[in-house]
Amino acid sequence: MDTKSLLTDVELELQKQVSRLDTPRTKPFHEMLTYHMGWTGEGAGSEATGKRIRPLLVLLSTASCGASWQLALPAAAAVELVHNFSLIHDDIQDNSLKRRGRDTAWVKWGAPMAINLGDALFVISNQAIIDLKNNYPAEMVVSAAEILHNTCLDLTRGQFLDMSYEERKDLMVEDYWPMIAGKTAALLSACCHIGSLLGGADEEKQEAYRSFGHYLGLAFQVQDDILGIWGDEKLTGKSVASDLVEGKNSLPVIAGLGRKGRFALRWAEGPIKPEEVEEVSRMLASEGGLIAAQEASKQMTDLALRGLREADPQGEAGEALFDLANRLLKREQ
Amino acid sequence: MDTKSLLTDVELELQKQVSRLDTPRTKPFHEMLTYHMGWTGEGAGSEATGKRIRPLLVLLSTASCGASWQLALPAAAAVELVHNFSLIHDDIQDNSLKRRGRDTAWVKWGAPMAINLGDALFVISNQAIIDLKNNYPAEMVVSAAEILHNTCLDLTRGQFLDMSYEERKDLMVEDYWPMIAGKTAALLSACCHIGSLLGGADEEKQEAYRSFGHYLGLAFQVQDDILGIWGDEKLTGKSVASDLVEGKNSLPVIAGLGRKGRFALRWAEGPIKPEEVEEVSRMLASEGGLIAAQEASKQMTDLALRGLREADPQGEAGEALFDLANRLLKREQ
Repeated sequence: MDTKSLLTDVELELQKQVSRLDTPRTKPFHEMLTYHMGWTGEGAGSEATGKRIRPLLVLLSTASCGASWQLALPAAAAVELVHNFSLIHDDIQDNSLKRRGRDTAWVKWGAPMAINLGDALFVISNQAIIDLKNNYPAEMVVSAAEILHNTCLDLTRGQFLDMSYEERKDLMVEDYWPMIAGKTAALLSACCHIGSLLGGADEEKQEAYRSFGHYLGLAFQVQDDILGIWGDEKLTGKSVASDLVEGKNSLPVIAGLGRKGRFALRWAEGPIKPEEVEEVSRMLASEGGLIAAQEASKQMTDLALRGLREADPQGEAGEALFDLANRLLKREQ
Repeated sequence: MDTKSLLTDVELELQKQVSRLDTPRTKPFHEMLTYHMGWTGEGAGSEATGKRIRPLLVLLSTASCGASWQLALPAAAAVELVHNFSLIHDDIQDNSLKRRGRDTAWVKWGAPMAINLGDALFVISNQAIIDLKNNYPAEMVVSAAEILHNTCLDLTRGQFLDMSYEERKDLMVEDYWPMIAGKTAALLSACCHIGSLLGGADEEKQEAYRSFGHYLGLAFQVQDDILGIWGDEKLTGKSVASDLVEGKNSLPVIAGLGRKGRFALRWAEGPIKPEEVEEVSRMLASEGGLIAAQEASKQMTDLALRGLREADPQGEAGEALFDLANRLLKREQ
């Protein structure tokens, strides 16, 4: 299945949704959104839009249940809008200057405007999911909206945990999973769940799709954590130093802290300086942080693929879904 | 009709909705919400909760159509949660230290946490409106959700205009109304609209209720603007100096600027100091700012009451709705 035509239609649907703010008095507001979505302004283009993985998961889930993916486009737009709303607010919360190589919204227009921009994108995601009413029975729209809202509450839970962990010195691996479940896995899980719901899957099959998305999200995040410390800077496009220097509570770090060895002592002393990164990352690897994360990644990857096999996605869309999963999980078929 | 029992049930419904975050790992998050809602922490109580006018409008609209207000409780909670979400984000955007006499959320927990707190409250409002599915057909739930989401987009539009006006020197009365329509009238309008929808009103009657809420909101805001400059400090509980000192683009100010007289010259020179307030407010009154706002207030009040008469609300709830309108519009029956 050629995912390019799906992605073209996703972009059109996103533009249609966001155009709700393209009204005489709010044109500059609309322009802020089209900048953030990657369509306009300096550096606009495919690098700036991101990969649109979430809408792709929705549409391939629907199509691999044997239903029309076109009808599910509003839901595909909704999940991407939720993702982008959370990025705008995350960037303010984390004080991030750049997103996909470009100035973040709050850097360009100030935090007050960017908070409102995120709120608007969030509202539009809600409007997008309700737009399903043109294509599906109202009961199904209500179910899809319910899944989306529950997911969004999980996002705020994950965000809360992440921020509250910043002051914690006693984090354990058990604290890691609920944070990541909210921050990363919840939305990927919702994509597959909503997609299969709209595809007409029964509850058991929806649960398999949901489980696939959930573990895909967990595996993806753990791999991201590993790359954030030991990744190839040239391949990942971001400095491998950043996660250690930023003091991010990633899985390798939390696992390493549990060993109460040299890494834990160094971590407790305060921020890692860029020039220490090589030594500290070697220290963390030698004290089991890397292996622990690799094992967790393997476990989550296996669970994701088990979920996908249970979902038993059909046809070309099913193949495309396996392809996408393998690509995201960095496994060659 | 005794609105006390309505308000008791509104509070219980709100607590039920917010308890979604009362889970083992997110108890401190839940406590932040119960503080903001006015139930816990220093200064908790009826002063801190606010008047819950919006849920009251929903329930009285439903009941005055001859239907059960109890069934509409999730919608009543939803509009109050939207209002409270917007307050949390507003306080960050405006750098406000106090809200209803208590420290604002961002003052207590920092802006990043408060942004997420507002987001969570917004999500819960979405979940609350979907909870209507237990009491109404799915088509009606979808309609109610649609009204709520459209309203929320209007809120972000109004907020955008308000913030973008801060830099404008050429504001005219025509710029004022769209800002206020979004910031204040949209949600009051949605309360009456959703309430009558759930009450089973036909489209024409829904439109009358909606119109009542819209003009009620406009009239209420204009009165608030007048009180913010010429109000009795002892009655309003806030310093009458504040609106002029804060440079707020209220209707009297914008109308006064249009006269291009002494007030406009003084306004253009920069912030009004507290010791100038008496003189500048007298200047503004003598140049027509007060009369222009009073006339607008009267006009909007008339339109609100015309809308309410057209809606023709029935029974004790109808009387209570007229009472509430007259109370809000500061008119004795």
